[in-house]
Amino acid sequence: MTATNENMPLGVFDSGVGGLTVVRALRKLLPDESIVYLGDTARIPYGSKSPDTIRQFAMEDTQFLLTKGVKAVVVACNTATAHALPLLQETFRVPIIGVLEPGVEAVLKGKNCCRVGIIGTEGTIRSHAYQHMLAMRRPDIRTHAVATPLLVPFVEAGWLNHASLRLALEEYLKPLIKMEIDTLVLGCTHYPLLLPILRKLLGKSVRLVDSATTCASHVGAMLREHGLVSTRRGNASVEIYLTDVSERAEELTKRFLGVETGKILPARVG
Amino acid sequence: MTATNENMPLGVFDSGVGGLTVVRALRKLLPDESIVYLGDTARIPYGSKSPDTIRQFAMEDTQFLLTKGVKAVVVACNTATAHALPLLQETFRVPIIGVLEPGVEAVLKGKNCCRVGIIGTEGTIRSHAYQHMLAMRRPDIRTHAVATPLLVPFVEAGWLNHASLRLALEEYLKPLIKMEIDTLVLGCTHYPLLLPILRKLLGKSVRLVDSATTCASHVGAMLREHGLVSTRRGNASVEIYLTDVSERAEELTKRFLGVETGKILPARVG
Repeated sequence: MTATNENMPLGVFDSGVGGLTVVRALRKLLPDESIVYLGDTARIPYGSKSPDTIRQFAMEDTQFLLTKGVKAVVVACNTATAHALPLLQETFRVPIIGVLEPGVEAVLKGKNCCRVGIIGTEGTIRSHAYQHMLAMRRPDIRTHAVATPLLVPFVEAGWLNHASLRLALEEYLKPLIKMEIDTLVLGCTHYPLLLPILRKLLGKSVRLVDSATTCASHVGAMLREHGLVSTRRGNASVEIYLTDVSERAEELTKRFLGVETGKILPARVG
Repeated sequence: MTATNENMPLGVFDSGVGGLTVVRALRKLLPDESIVYLGDTARIPYGSKSPDTIRQFAMEDTQFLLTKGVKAVVVACNTATAHALPLLQETFRVPIIGVLEPGVEAVLKGKNCCRVGIIGTEGTIRSHAYQHMLAMRRPDIRTHAVATPLLVPFVEAGWLNHASLRLALEEYLKPLIKMEIDTLVLGCTHYPLLLPILRKLLGKSVRLVDSATTCASHVGAMLREHGLVSTRRGNASVEIYLTDVSERAEELTKRFLGVETGKILPARVG
């Protein structure tokens, strides 16, 4: 394998296609960076599985991206970031960045930020990663985290405004509304598609923090820091590898990437 | 490996722990049969994945059970049965039985059975396996199948009587109620836990067919046919292997098996 250079693509992985919300933000902010994306759709979801299994999958996903010659890796999955980021950073030599730290930064940029709610998969919430990182930076903040395992299935079913979803969200948000949160962290890359209904349920006074956008600006800073900013202009490509390619996965890819996608390629991982 | 004999255990696999509803029925009907169960909890769900991936997983699961020395294999997963049963039966020499045919038998035993609704995962419904098998046996029956991808997440979340589930079910059942079904096939081993709420929503006039019980009696007949009925009395064991062992999986195992379980063992498959 050749040495890392700035014109190699960025690698991005997620348990499925939710991480394409991060790719969408990267394309906007860093249009000259080519991207190789891996969605582990054969083993999705990660959020309900054990820490050991999540770490094993994240290692395998990163190895796959490295065989595609990426210069850096973005872990566009909150669950994998929460459980595996330190292990990945210790194991591999390329820069590796996750979605949690950018999310925490975005929370702390808010003017009024005293009571913070966090929603995410069981794996993400159980890891206490958001709670821990917020407490380290701002011990005065009160946090309350709620595992919301039904939200990914609702998003994947495309029921983004269904009464059944509304009732499920009301149940999940009840303790957060009771503690009068001023900020809600959407701790899963699937959740940006729920922004409209969350806005309706929570009103304008609660700031909704989605880590996709801040993650992209962190990636830009990381590339500059390591001298890895692409010197090419134009023709940046996006290659999407999925471990399970199905019609359904293609539909969801379009929904999350927000445009017609190029070719989707099959991958074998693990 | 030694030749197959009647005192070897039965192998049962599912994408997760839903198939334990079949194990529960087997324990009741065939208490002298030892069972080795494999739940592929690391890659659950199968229902939303593509036929090729489902077939690959089913092959790997069966191979795992064969290394444990089973005399026959029960595919306790509707999705895997729908897509992979013929392939498994062609590939392996031990008898292999699925959950679909017993389900279809149970439907046809009903006195009044003209309009049959089927609910299941996207994979099961898309396979048209139930629709096809019913049409072959009774061309006069009208069937209507609905993919119900949110039901497994609801069952796994333990929200078995939540208003949000009720609304989702009302949405899914609407076309079936409209066509005045007399029978509903619960085409997924997770769904027996929804029997109480389905009974409430559909009333007494609709017969609910759950394949777990009929599957167990088919397994009994298969063992007799192949001279594989256990000659031992008492001390039959249940070994449960999971590809992802977590607290959550252990909780679900208890819920589905309906008793305190013995040791849960980790397995590596694929």
